[in-house]
Amino acid sequence: MAAAVALGWRGRGRTAPNPNVGCLIVKEGRVVGRGWTQPGGRPHAEAMALAEAGDEAQGATVYASLEPCAHESARGPACADLLVAARPARVVIACGDPDPRIDGRGVARIEAAGIAVTQGICTEAAEASMAGFLTRIRLGRPFVTLKLALSIDGRIALASGESRWLTGAEARADAHAERARADMILVGRGTYEADSPSLDVRLPGLADRSPMRALLTGGDAPEGWARIAEPGAIHALDGINDLMVEGGARTAAAFVAADLVDRLLIYRAPILVGGGKAGLADIGLDSLAAAHGRWRRIATRPLGSDLREDYVRSR
Amino acid sequence: MAAAVALGWRGRGRTAPNPNVGCLIVKEGRVVGRGWTQPGGRPHAEAMALAEAGDEAQGATVYASLEPCAHESARGPACADLLVAARPARVVIACGDPDPRIDGRGVARIEAAGIAVTQGICTEAAEASMAGFLTRIRLGRPFVTLKLALSIDGRIALASGESRWLTGAEARADAHAERARADMILVGRGTYEADSPSLDVRLPGLADRSPMRALLTGGDAPEGWARIAEPGAIHALDGINDLMVEGGARTAAAFVAADLVDRLLIYRAPILVGGGKAGLADIGLDSLAAAHGRWRRIATRPLGSDLREDYVRSR
Ligand SMILES: NC(=O)c1ccc[n+]([C@@H]2O[C@H](COP(=O)([O-])OP(=O)(O)OC[C@H]3O[C@@H](n4cnc5c(N)ncnc54)[C@H](OP(=O)(O)O)[C@@H]3O)[C@@H](O)[C@H]2O)c1
Ligand SMILES: NC(=O)c1ccc[n+]([C@@H]2O[C@H](COP(=O)([O-])OP(=O)(O)OC[C@H]3O[C@@H](n4cnc5c(N)ncnc54)[C@H](OP(=O)(O)O)[C@@H]3O)[C@@H](O)[C@H]2O)c1
Repeated sequence: MAAAVALGWRGRGRTAPNPNVGCLIVKEGRVVGRGWTQPGGRPHAEAMALAEAGDEAQGATVYASLEPCAHESARGPACADLLVAARPARVVIACGDPDPRIDGRGVARIEAAGIAVTQGICTEAAEASMAGFLTRIRLGRPFVTLKLALSIDGRIALASGESRWLTGAEARADAHAERARADMILVGRGTYEADSPSLDVRLPGLADRSPMRALLTGGDAPEGWARIAEPGAIHALDGINDLMVEGGARTAAAFVAADLVDRLLIYRAPILVGGGKAGLADIGLDSLAAAHGRWRRIATRPLGSDLREDYVRSR
Repeated sequence: MAAAVALGWRGRGRTAPNPNVGCLIVKEGRVVGRGWTQPGGRPHAEAMALAEAGDEAQGATVYASLEPCAHESARGPACADLLVAARPARVVIACGDPDPRIDGRGVARIEAAGIAVTQGICTEAAEASMAGFLTRIRLGRPFVTLKLALSIDGRIALASGESRWLTGAEARADAHAERARADMILVGRGTYEADSPSLDVRLPGLADRSPMRALLTGGDAPEGWARIAEPGAIHALDGINDLMVEGGARTAAAFVAADLVDRLLIYRAPILVGGGKAGLADIGLDSLAAAHGRWRRIATRPLGSDLREDYVRSR
């Protein structure tokens, strides 16, 4: 199942509004089919893996990171029906699909055909891999990552505004790879005006994965940018699983204060800046006690001389 | 030799102005003597280890993290002479003693007696273990550690001044253990007035290791506190190997701006503070390029939910 989840990661940022599912088919210890949701959402992971497996799927074990869909669409048959037709011996599912059109119906249809279903394997890892889709279905808004490049002392720029470059080439490449996993990137008007950021993915082979761009502003957004009038407006976004917020300080603070950040992605440069621009403006905190218990550090990783720190919101 | 260096660490913070040396004596694969510089600086590590080894020292190998001393003092004989009298087969030394009274004379005296000397084993680790002493001899000032407890976004307190507690119990205990390795702790007048810190070592069994206290102030220091009028004044401190600077923001900035910080000890709490007090005030930086290349992260370690980050100045 871990391998199926890993396949699913390949689609992150390119399948919205669909989930980025991974699927692996194993027969007698051999992998006979592999699939992941394709760009735009079709074919689904199971359809791709079943196509590869062909007749070998019969009697095999199918691992899917998400419950197979049970609704036919103009774009293709339901995966549950494809599975029933392929007659595997067993289907193993990491997590259920909370989409009201599915929500157990996929499992029911497979079991009704006499195929054994096992659920709840690698659930946490699978949920993390599809956090964008799951957050959209459950909370009605995208999964929000706040990315900040910070000095040891938490600055994002000198007092003069100079912010290029705080972090090194490895950290910047990693940030571009993270961008490729987002459907949309947002910055505040201040950052737009100071840095005129292009927000594209500047990595060989990934240039076509550049996400949509959004501007947080009370005013108008320029051509080619979606306008977000305030953080809560992300509830109205349609079909965006993953949103990456890239600053500046007031934009970051607005999302944190609205409790609309699910993950912090910090690239920490080994430098001291002193007086300069803070990474996070006022969030209206009135006691340290209120700040504790909200963030859990789940990973730290060196990137060149920088340190990447990942935190998730404890909810 | 690594074990000898580890023994030497036991004395850090209690041997000034002497170095905190470690010594191990091994005969036929067995440890027959162990020593480390005792509180106040005497007995020396070699004297302690030789006393434990007794006659077993003859023909043994002696590992010493620092070159044995060659000068007699009212408080005891020179270690080089003690070694010559004990007749080991070999003496292994991690690093030479730059003290002008020694500086090769210890090695010369041992070799002149026909005992083999090997030098340069584990030198880097030994130098780190005695960084306080070595910095004092080489640069004429203590080794300076700047300790800061910071939020993810680099704050040390709320706008209201509330700073207790940013970090958790494990990080605070670790900070107290670090205090026990300093000869003197310094804070700025602002911190003294805001927090009236006692700066003692509040760990079971280590209360007697509380270092001297110093205040950075243009004014007078209260009873029981040394007065440091400006960072450069640490050159006039007598017999202090290790100085720990514990803030606040202007004090930290004054030491960083004067390039008088050798190590950064950051306790990073997994919280966002937003508007509040920055950990580091203006250091007069005028370009990001000037900030790079000064600090090298040598370790990160989780302490409860906090992260300890160690950086050393690249010189
Ligand atoms: N190192 C890094 O990772 C990094 C990343 C990004 C930026 N930066 C630096 O950060 C600086 C810019 O930061 P900043 O704080 O000045 O500006 P900012 O956060 O980029 O933008 C502030 C603007 O966002 C809009 N806004 C903010 N909160 C809002 C809310 N609740 N509702 C609606 N609109 C809202 C407003 O635009 P309107 O006035 O148009 O309404 C406001 O003027 C630049 O120097 C940039 O270089 C560094
Ligand atoms: N979280 C943490 O790790 C931590 C640690 C320490 C402090 N804090 C917080 O930090 C705040 C205090 O910081 P702060 O920046 O206001 O004050 P501060 O740095 O503690 O003290 C500033 C004072 O130090 C003296 N000083 C500074 N630079 C000097 C120089 N170059 N030469 C001579 N004297 C100099 C001056 O004293 P005179 O005016 O007397 O000359 C100045 O007023 C408090 O809220 C405290 O709770 C947090």
